[in-house]
Amino acid sequence: MTAVRNVLFVMCDQLRRDFVSCYGASPVPTPNLERLAALGVRFDHAYVQSGVCGPARMSYYTGRYVSSHGATWNRVPLSAAEHTLGDYLHVAGRKATLAGKTHVLPDTKALARFGIEVESERGALLREGGFTVVDRYDGHTPPGPESGYAAWLRARGYAGADPWSEHVIAVEAGGSVASGWQMRNVHLPSRVAEPHSETAYMTDLALDWIRAQGGTPWVLHLSYVKPHWPYIAPAPFHAMFRNADVGPILHGPQDGTAEEHPVVRAYREHDESLSFAQEAVARHVRPAYMGLIAQLDAHLGRVLDELAAMGRLSDTLIVFTSDHGEFSGDRGLGEKELFYDEIVRVPFIVCDPDPRADATRGTADARFVEGIDVVPTILDALGISGASHRIEGRSLLPLTRGDAAAAARDAVFSELDYGFRRARRVLGRAVRECRGFMVRTKDWKYIHWEGFRPQLFDLVADPRELADLGADARHDAVRARLREQLFDWMATLKRRTTVNDQAVADATDAHRAHGIHIGIW
Amino acid sequence: MTAVRNVLFVMCDQLRRDFVSCYGASPVPTPNLERLAALGVRFDHAYVQSGVCGPARMSYYTGRYVSSHGATWNRVPLSAAEHTLGDYLHVAGRKATLAGKTHVLPDTKALARFGIEVESERGALLREGGFTVVDRYDGHTPPGPESGYAAWLRARGYAGADPWSEHVIAVEAGGSVASGWQMRNVHLPSRVAEPHSETAYMTDLALDWIRAQGGTPWVLHLSYVKPHWPYIAPAPFHAMFRNADVGPILHGPQDGTAEEHPVVRAYREHDESLSFAQEAVARHVRPAYMGLIAQLDAHLGRVLDELAAMGRLSDTLIVFTSDHGEFSGDRGLGEKELFYDEIVRVPFIVCDPDPRADATRGTADARFVEGIDVVPTILDALGISGASHRIEGRSLLPLTRGDAAAAARDAVFSELDYGFRRARRVLGRAVRECRGFMVRTKDWKYIHWEGFRPQLFDLVADPRELADLGADARHDAVRARLREQLFDWMATLKRRTTVNDQAVADATDAHRAHGIHIGIW
Repeated sequence: MTAVRNVLFVMCDQLRRDFVSCYGASPVPTPNLERLAALGVRFDHAYVQSGVCGPARMSYYTGRYVSSHGATWNRVPLSAAEHTLGDYLHVAGRKATLAGKTHVLPDTKALARFGIEVESERGALLREGGFTVVDRYDGHTPPGPESGYAAWLRARGYAGADPWSEHVIAVEAGGSVASGWQMRNVHLPSRVAEPHSETAYMTDLALDWIRAQGGTPWVLHLSYVKPHWPYIAPAPFHAMFRNADVGPILHGPQDGTAEEHPVVRAYREHDESLSFAQEAVARHVRPAYMGLIAQLDAHLGRVLDELAAMGRLSDTLIVFTSDHGEFSGDRGLGEKELFYDEIVRVPFIVCDPDPRADATRGTADARFVEGIDVVPTILDALGISGASHRIEGRSLLPLTRGDAAAAARDAVFSELDYGFRRARRVLGRAVRECRGFMVRTKDWKYIHWEGFRPQLFDLVADPRELADLGADARHDAVRARLREQLFDWMATLKRRTTVNDQAVADATDAHRAHGIHIGIW
Repeated sequence: MTAVRNVLFVMCDQLRRDFVSCYGASPVPTPNLERLAALGVRFDHAYVQSGVCGPARMSYYTGRYVSSHGATWNRVPLSAAEHTLGDYLHVAGRKATLAGKTHVLPDTKALARFGIEVESERGALLREGGFTVVDRYDGHTPPGPESGYAAWLRARGYAGADPWSEHVIAVEAGGSVASGWQMRNVHLPSRVAEPHSETAYMTDLALDWIRAQGGTPWVLHLSYVKPHWPYIAPAPFHAMFRNADVGPILHGPQDGTAEEHPVVRAYREHDESLSFAQEAVARHVRPAYMGLIAQLDAHLGRVLDELAAMGRLSDTLIVFTSDHGEFSGDRGLGEKELFYDEIVRVPFIVCDPDPRADATRGTADARFVEGIDVVPTILDALGISGASHRIEGRSLLPLTRGDAAAAARDAVFSELDYGFRRARRVLGRAVRECRGFMVRTKDWKYIHWEGFRPQLFDLVADPRELADLGADARHDAVRARLREQLFDWMATLKRRTTVNDQAVADATDAHRAHGIHIGIW
């Protein structure tokens, strides 16, 4: 019997792994994440399935690679045919509840085709990717009708049609109001008081909801929209760090051994790269980004305190992670995407309250973990059988519970569809010709780009991925081997989703039982 | 403007290409198929996307590869999220009508999840893969409640609870009734008169339906269950051919250059291979198989006569093909599957009534064609836009209309999931470890088998695929090149199905228009 009754699945948006102090040198101290790591296992090689919100999250929620769930970028709806954490829990009579962001786009065309009213109970679940919603708030645009944040702000005196634009991401500069969209303003504090910021609001909502559950078991996805841009932090977090705290910035381009890869070069033409490539901009923005992380850490401290006070730390599985990282000027790039570790390698902590996990508490685990492992881990913890014919991730409980026989992954995989990005136009490609696939093994990272040469990094000799060996003739054999690994991965993606493995096993060679006698004399 | 108002999409089941006389030496004369070929283009290199009914047909109906539609074998339901010919026509206010077999298994779990009543109009369409049904009859089991064939037989005096088993596939032997399941009986005539056989019944139904349409444009899928087993032909077709007409049989195993491939070897342990490996069995069964083909040809003659009489040949696009072939003892194998040309290369004739196709009438086209090309060809002919983000086939009208600039495929692809077959147990594999992928180029056929060495055939030196070069060291470079082609194919399968290409193009770099200002100073 597992001790797990509840699940808290915490996600941050655009939180970079090396800006979290439990992972070593970080420009931001994150004492509460260190506290969380002490309660569980800190995974050091956790990778997301795409370096951008939508596809990464759909992998987190379905337990499937991007090529399998098909939501290849932010604006791509999650197919109604996909099953999410909420769906699996639903079948078992439980719910996945959401407070915060999911980035799920509803497959409205399928709903119309199936005659499902978007406002019906079934429609709402499909629209929300299987989550039952306390408050959905996807951030970085004015809260839509689905979120209570705007009304909540107004009730606290932040007037206006759009209190988010006017207060949350706005600042006061020289006697007038200025927008946080302009990064020149991010050294100034938000016009909302800290307790009214996005991070505080969502933490309050989550804690209220957890308290309201009383003794009823629950599964909550607490999904923060920060430290994602706009990079406006409330006081005092806006001023907690100064440019001097930022430390060195990795200038770009740095690919020493070969001409820079065309796709990377194209990303340099995005607005965010044009800005962040200027060191002064990166040094101006990072303190705000760091302040937002410090604020998040403080609120995670509140969550931990409350869970401890309620006695929930002993029966709650906690998963903490991020949907991807952020360049913040490193390599002369801004934002996210591509396949560098700054983006696809994320913080990932699992606190398994089961006594069998006691021996691993406070340890670091260097084995590979993927975002798709979250769903099977949660289902395993709750004793709910998943769907082995659909879910491509693996439960991490054998790792937290020290099962020495647990098979470790020998590689992790990530994908990108840049068809929606300016880079596509820069490169003159059709929307269907913009796919990249990464395989990362212990020693190497290999990236297949449709229509271009691959990228290759020697992670032993070059852990910062500075020398792209993708065109280096001395590495032909390495590339061939990694490409082979990518081939095998593609060939074994889970495509047969409408019938499960047991049914196939039961039906094997069973035609005679159905009165079909093939080829008998 | 196209002249095409109607579409007749004729499919046979298990009809082998070299048993059709318009493709050269055939043991069966098929004069009506020659007549059909004279009206259009006979494609000489047409390949199905899997060598077994279900997945091959789902590719025909969706225009997508098996890895994309996910119905990897016969008993795998077609995902409700897939769009079929009927769906595309439906959106354009038209219908795809079915008379015969589809092998579509409804995705009942999805229907239940979406709250769609199976008996509703929407449920019926989803259940039937988008077809509106005149009569669905999948053959080789007693006609289910969906088919009118059993009642039709009873009305013609064939009494009994199961007139199919008792009459259609039954014979009289030595004064008693014997079953056509036993191949020893296939030299005897069916207990039904020829006009009451499956092929005659479905032809009557189709012609009645076409006549009833009057001047209303129509799209009909006339889908015969023959010459698929049970190999019982009605008189006089049962006796039209004798063992001597069969000609040489290709004994197996023949793979001279290497040990026979393990998957092929495992298929030898299937009942049908154990039987057909005996030359006497093959020589006993083939005349019945050939008789069924001759009967089919005769009924296709009726169809052509009627269409001519109705004036429909001038405004009806006709596509004629088969879902796969049949070993019939060649290579010592029975039935189908695997990737030899006897199975995956099919007869394929397109009669395009448009005057622009006049120049190609009666010609053979050696360019590659795939089963997935049928849907885009029909949609193109009717001026209905398909869905380029989902459909992986190509319209063949540029080929029938002699567009010299039409890009020819340089390869065709096919897949197999043998997880349901005895071969899986023979090989000791899990249900998820049984995938094969074929790429066939002009000169080579390469097959990737999960967990085993590949197969390779030199189609120039060895057009009958007798020498498997899959382990031949002299062909390392060829295999690497073909594997690369398979890699590129897998990497470019159409995974983003919920948003179309134009929407992506329109949304490219468009965040500023939505008030999102990323990374501006």
